[in-house]
Amino acid sequence: QSSVELYGLLDVGVEYVNHAGDDGGSLARVISGGKNTSRWGIRGSEDLGGGLKAVYNLEGGILMDTGAADGALFKRQAYVGLDGKYGRLVIGRSFTTTYDLVIKFDPLGFAPNYSWATTGGATGPSKYGMTTSFDNMVKYTGKSGGFTYGASIGLGERAGNANEGRKIALGGSWFGKGLGLMAACEQVNGTTVAPAIRRDRTNVCHLASDYTTGDWRYTAGMRAYKLRHGAAATADLRGNTYWGGITRVIDDVTLTGAVYHIDTRNLPAGQDADPTMFVARAMLALSKRTTLYVSAAHAKADEGQLVGLSRDDAGTGTTQSGITAGIQHRF
Amino acid sequence: QSSVELYGLLDVGVEYVNHAGDDGGSLARVISGGKNTSRWGIRGSEDLGGGLKAVYNLEGGILMDTGAADGALFKRQAYVGLDGKYGRLVIGRSFTTTYDLVIKFDPLGFAPNYSWATTGGATGPSKYGMTTSFDNMVKYTGKSGGFTYGASIGLGERAGNANEGRKIALGGSWFGKGLGLMAACEQVNGTTVAPAIRRDRTNVCHLASDYTTGDWRYTAGMRAYKLRHGAAATADLRGNTYWGGITRVIDDVTLTGAVYHIDTRNLPAGQDADPTMFVARAMLALSKRTTLYVSAAHAKADEGQLVGLSRDDAGTGTTQSGITAGIQHRF
Amino acid sequence: QSSVELYGLLDVGVEYVNHAGDDGGSLARVISGGKNTSRWGIRGSEDLGGGLKAVYNLEGGILMDTGAADGALFKRQAYVGLDGKYGRLVIGRSFTTTYDLVIKFDPLGFAPNYSWATTGGATGPSKYGMTTSFDNMVKYTGKSGGFTYGASIGLGERAGNANEGRKIALGGSWFGKGLGLMAACEQVNGTTVAPAIRRDRTNVCHLASDYTTGDWRYTAGMRAYKLRHGAAATADLRGNTYWGGITRVIDDVTLTGAVYHIDTRNLPAGQDADPTMFVARAMLALSKRTTLYVSAAHAKADEGQLVGLSRDDAGTGTTQSGITAGIQHRF
Repeated sequence: QSSVELYGLLDVGVEYVNHAGDDGGSLARVISGGKNTSRWGIRGSEDLGGGLKAVYNLEGGILMDTGAADGALFKRQAYVGLDGKYGRLVIGRSFTTTYDLVIKFDPLGFAPNYSWATTGGATGPSKYGMTTSFDNMVKYTGKSGGFTYGASIGLGERAGNANEGRKIALGGSWFGKGLGLMAACEQVNGTTVAPAIRRDRTNVCHLASDYTTGDWRYTAGMRAYKLRHGAAATADLRGNTYWGGITRVIDDVTLTGAVYHIDTRNLPAGQDADPTMFVARAMLALSKRTTLYVSAAHAKADEGQLVGLSRDDAGTGTTQSGITAGIQHRF
Repeated sequence: QSSVELYGLLDVGVEYVNHAGDDGGSLARVISGGKNTSRWGIRGSEDLGGGLKAVYNLEGGILMDTGAADGALFKRQAYVGLDGKYGRLVIGRSFTTTYDLVIKFDPLGFAPNYSWATTGGATGPSKYGMTTSFDNMVKYTGKSGGFTYGASIGLGERAGNANEGRKIALGGSWFGKGLGLMAACEQVNGTTVAPAIRRDRTNVCHLASDYTTGDWRYTAGMRAYKLRHGAAATADLRGNTYWGGITRVIDDVTLTGAVYHIDTRNLPAGQDADPTMFVARAMLALSKRTTLYVSAAHAKADEGQLVGLSRDDAGTGTTQSGITAGIQHRF
Repeated sequence: QSSVELYGLLDVGVEYVNHAGDDGGSLARVISGGKNTSRWGIRGSEDLGGGLKAVYNLEGGILMDTGAADGALFKRQAYVGLDGKYGRLVIGRSFTTTYDLVIKFDPLGFAPNYSWATTGGATGPSKYGMTTSFDNMVKYTGKSGGFTYGASIGLGERAGNANEGRKIALGGSWFGKGLGLMAACEQVNGTTVAPAIRRDRTNVCHLASDYTTGDWRYTAGMRAYKLRHGAAATADLRGNTYWGGITRVIDDVTLTGAVYHIDTRNLPAGQDADPTMFVARAMLALSKRTTLYVSAAHAKADEGQLVGLSRDDAGTGTTQSGITAGIQHRF
């Protein structure tokens, strides 16, 4: 028994943002993936007997406003592996253990319009983010009752030094009785920077909880981010991201409110941006596969620093407000 | 109820053209998409009840001679939208209203081998063409009896100025009693060119008619093209394209003859190319999905100007003749 | 009657190689396509009656360690054609006649980990290889009893000179009573190099045989490679590749041992690398579609020349050893 599924998620909308240009001008644009990144893919499994399955997935992102691929052809997923009673082991390119765990604890589910749960929109020295995917990955995921746990390694593939460029993520979550708890950490090794004798290295850890009761859901999470520079005399770069949100389901409508805040640290006087973003979203399910949504957000930074709603586009003002109306279809 | 369809159109052939090099040499080559651009895609719809459907399409072009993508992955189509009794509204990347309307009034259906209904093969200052697709598009299409009408907008996405880079197309057609009529216009705003105080802008309008009686079909169309330069002292660039064709169906064979002519205008003395192309094509349907075809064409330009049969390749002589034998399969 | 099939072959593993860096360091890496190149594609056929079919195939390679396309989107296959009692004729991009014939006579089936049947891993002046694919291809394949024969041409597409850049391959094989025999040659014309009056040209011929009896299979093959330089005073570049292998099937396990050797010729004193690679592989079929495998190889070069196991990566030592453990799934 085996299966092949051609699937996708197409999400388009129109966004209006202010403070979008250097002169403070506003902007209307067609956006792709406001609620979830637009994608297409092929996936399936084969029953090998004894509870063992071969599993595979190819998945690429799509920029629906131009029709272009969002990065490499199958940059989101390109793996094969085995899934059985001892867990699931896949090799190739895939999301990190961190990504898999944190997404369940973001009230906006990593929505580009608008969430900072993966990376912030600050245009200071860092986005204080996590690593969503590894190349050269071996990933293990296990389950036991309400527990899900796992580890990912992305090989550095540098001759003579297995630590150089190596990436590791691990963590776990527990769900039961409406409550969810999660912890996830990662360490990303960079490259030794001459004349330094050590490599730069990023350490990122998350803690989060989630509680659902009736039509209401309450979510809170945090990330501690630290970049140790390879250059010995350079101070660590640190930032803590905090978020919280409330979601209410009323028949086919889902309402979400959330706040994201980054406590930027160790910055010189006058640059401590400490950006905050407030988000509200209403979704109307036309069917299980088709959803209309409206998202609105406002971001602000302290000390006259620049900030943007987007995780990708640099901010050009000390505040930015935006609203997106979109449609999403899954096939 | 929802559906996913994986589909494509693969069109390959061998073309022989003379006057293909600077030394006048001829050329045999494998071509992709002689009759219709080779493509593959994913499309489908979901019934949302009350006559409303969610619709989507991802489609990319293929260069069958090398296996490469013809531009971005889903450059031909990447949209999601709704279709119902009030019409069809889609967002993303798609063909313009102009493209959708004009293609029904080209006797060769935009065939790269050989039609100038989208753009000409002149190698003067312009191809005097229309815009086939918009990025950042919102497109509406309505129907009422024999009438089809619509409008497309491609957002310019420049902060502070919604007119900069904005593209608009609109038009309609009517079919009834064997007769078809069409009008379609577009305006494409460029960018303000310093030190000019206005932006360059292209205005293009089409008129066409089509008449089918028994096995015969008669088609005639025209396009008026005007480019207003952003530099104030520069004269407008103008060209009118005219075409006409006759098609006869004899069982599984379809014969088509057509002429395309561009009246290039406002050009300096000795550069008024006024190119003309004569085309003949025979198609044999092996099935509903598989077709063999032979196309032949001859193009010429006045005043010793260069001309080419192709809309893409620059001409290298004052005349060019070519013949293509191809096969097309749809799946 | 027509069909559309979405299919793929996903092959990932982890490889350990020594002598992988300039300092002799070793390397662990995730590899894609150890046993067969990872790929995905769309293929099908339509019955046109009278034994005639329309056939088509689109196929692209995948680098599973990063999710990137391995070259152009459908670089492996992009063709349409007809298949009937007089043979099969396809146009577009596809594998050469040489590739189609030789692959059946490589005990490792062109496995990147590890076979030199397509090209060698020498890092001298050449890889002494064959041409796996042609752009601008017209390919004919015929069958008669145990005979398979064919010819491919890749048009050079240079105006005024049909010989410039033209590629030709032809050959045949016979299988019967457990025995297989094959001969295949190709000629690849380059471009005339000024001030030379002739173009460079590669001529490559193969001979091979294969014998299967019970669970055992014995394979031997060779390739004679000659590059005639366009520059008249430059000596031809020559190299003969020889290989042999034994395969044994024991229930779900397939064991293969093979040796590849390149007799590099016409090289200056002290550069005659004459590289050799020894390979052993064990495969375990978990199902018809899913296979686990372990491959190991050792390559060495004479005269202190560099050599690598890989056909793609340059060697950095005079020997290299490697071992790969992988999983392959076909869908």
